[in-house]
Amino acid sequence: MLKKYLLAPGPTPVPPEVLNAMAMPIVHHRSPDFIPIFEYAKNALKRLYQTNNDVLVLTATGTGGMVGAVNNFFSKGDKVIVVNAGKFGERWTKICRTFGLEVEEINVDWGYAVKPEEIESLLKKTPAIKGVFIQYTETSTGVNHDIQAIGNILKGYDDVLFVVDAISALVAHDIRTDEWGIDVCVGGSQKGLMLPPGLSFVSVSEKAWKRAESSDIPRFYFNFKAERKNLKDNQTNFTSPVTLIIGLNEAMKIIEKEGLANVFKRHEHLANATREAVKALGLGLYAKESPANSVTAVECPPGVDGQKVYKVLREDFGITCAGGQDQAKGKIFRIAHLGFADRFDIIIAISAVEMTLKKLGQEVTFGTGVAVCEKLLM
Amino acid sequence: MLKKYLLAPGPTPVPPEVLNAMAMPIVHHRSPDFIPIFEYAKNALKRLYQTNNDVLVLTATGTGGMVGAVNNFFSKGDKVIVVNAGKFGERWTKICRTFGLEVEEINVDWGYAVKPEEIESLLKKTPAIKGVFIQYTETSTGVNHDIQAIGNILKGYDDVLFVVDAISALVAHDIRTDEWGIDVCVGGSQKGLMLPPGLSFVSVSEKAWKRAESSDIPRFYFNFKAERKNLKDNQTNFTSPVTLIIGLNEAMKIIEKEGLANVFKRHEHLANATREAVKALGLGLYAKESPANSVTAVECPPGVDGQKVYKVLREDFGITCAGGQDQAKGKIFRIAHLGFADRFDIIIAISAVEMTLKKLGQEVTFGTGVAVCEKLLM
Repeated sequence: MLKKYLLAPGPTPVPPEVLNAMAMPIVHHRSPDFIPIFEYAKNALKRLYQTNNDVLVLTATGTGGMVGAVNNFFSKGDKVIVVNAGKFGERWTKICRTFGLEVEEINVDWGYAVKPEEIESLLKKTPAIKGVFIQYTETSTGVNHDIQAIGNILKGYDDVLFVVDAISALVAHDIRTDEWGIDVCVGGSQKGLMLPPGLSFVSVSEKAWKRAESSDIPRFYFNFKAERKNLKDNQTNFTSPVTLIIGLNEAMKIIEKEGLANVFKRHEHLANATREAVKALGLGLYAKESPANSVTAVECPPGVDGQKVYKVLREDFGITCAGGQDQAKGKIFRIAHLGFADRFDIIIAISAVEMTLKKLGQEVTFGTGVAVCEKLLM
Repeated sequence: MLKKYLLAPGPTPVPPEVLNAMAMPIVHHRSPDFIPIFEYAKNALKRLYQTNNDVLVLTATGTGGMVGAVNNFFSKGDKVIVVNAGKFGERWTKICRTFGLEVEEINVDWGYAVKPEEIESLLKKTPAIKGVFIQYTETSTGVNHDIQAIGNILKGYDDVLFVVDAISALVAHDIRTDEWGIDVCVGGSQKGLMLPPGLSFVSVSEKAWKRAESSDIPRFYFNFKAERKNLKDNQTNFTSPVTLIIGLNEAMKIIEKEGLANVFKRHEHLANATREAVKALGLGLYAKESPANSVTAVECPPGVDGQKVYKVLREDFGITCAGGQDQAKGKIFRIAHLGFADRFDIIIAISAVEMTLKKLGQEVTFGTGVAVCEKLLM
């Protein structure tokens, strides 16, 4: 018997209560059965986002929400800043350029966070910047950018929309959408929200809605004004992803029963224990600063291939984590502690890493990392 | 106790085997666990579509597939024909115009099918038509267009792509994608395929792939060339909707165990019984010709409001059907016999219609419609 453990940064494990709710007979999205279900989801998302803004619900992966964030609030030729510190920063650039935006890219070495001052100085020397695009957590490196600090800088720029991909950060981090001045904040279902893939969420500020009036990029499927209109009636513009919204109800009940503050703290503790355990095993963290609480990118020791670590973890131990992407491929493996995760998920992960390293010929004192976890998570 | 019956044309009921499969712990979309699951789905869809073409899988509702069908194969200024015979024909026009296509609309009265000759004569007198957009079943009226006949006409036009929205027709009708020359055929999960909403499918002919090379409409989320590339590796371009694909495996197993030919015949029998029962009750069919086998649009007798029929069916009898849309609102109600449906679903529906009409003050001889169903479905 090889039990399976999913420890990748999305999709993440779905709690049995949620799976169970989603296995109930389906209801019709325009019927009175569904309205209160959607209404609950809508309001719960506002609490999770800590916002008074609308949070739109799209039938799409997180990337769909990112595309909508570009298509609904910007126009061809608009000059924008993209912080590119990894695979998903790069995606912002690609989307923006696809739709004719002019991108000023701030390139940050993988493993590092952008310095907020860099954004400020680029804003000062470049007139007519219309938006700043960034990740909360750059999932490919496991690094957080300082969204609060950047938000504070942007408060001085009335014409700049602050667009944050919080797909991996939502639920793992205390994201204060309104307080920090995030105009457009994108989330997804298959991460901290403990749901299968298929939903994207986008919160939209009044400032962004005003900008939407002048946007000239054609859109149909991701039509945020139409979604906003439907949201008032607890509906979506097209057929609602009924099953996932029902799951979202259950997931938000679990999250709010624990309490948002406790959920954030849990993620912090699990992430911290993972980092300390990994260091105790003599491994480096790929995140050289501000590591994320959702995923830890671990550097492989010299001579160990990260893809091999991924393979042994899967085949010998039943654990699915994630490898590295692009320039990090082979150099790292990534362990998620996101959503439906408690201390024993970390202990399983670290224990498996110890055995995997030994299998791959490394010197390991068994229990070293696990001991650190127990100490920190008792 | 008021048991609930879902008899709307999407979402449709999901079989327990499918719900059960979707309630299993989630797997990672880039892991070897998922590859054979996706591969099965991919090949099963080709058998369902009766095509050797690629069938792409998108995380979106059917409308997302429609948008992709416009964005990937056409260019701004392209002249196209749209057959508008109801709400969903109108949607083709809206999508095409959103992205700068020049639409020649053939308007067909609601309740009727387009005459294939009309398309032919418009093609003859309008040079440079690049595509014909149509529904297989116009769900708002319950009418089928003659896709085979139109396909035959279009075989004489090398520069014209034949784009069919088969969202409601898939599984209910024998759709011969290759034989009939359908270049782009759009499906959805929440109809005949007996799945929750959230998946769209698009088959693409070689002729359409060639056209894709010159298309100039920007796209990112619905990027069919990227999907095609991923399809070869049994992947999707972005995070796969794992749970729905697992459900799709189960649903296709059910469908193929019954056998495609039997599935089509079942839909035909159920639809026929519904129509005959409704007529026996003195009600008219909204479809004046070629009624669909997925949904029957029933005309209300004078003095009876279709929305009231919808309401009584729901509140007194636990049955969710669909009302009319736009110009048909209040005039009709629609009963689906689509996907996970057998004879007793029809008998329940007709029985409830008899009691509902009586409740609304109509003269009804109880059992009249049910008797017809029993005779035809025994």
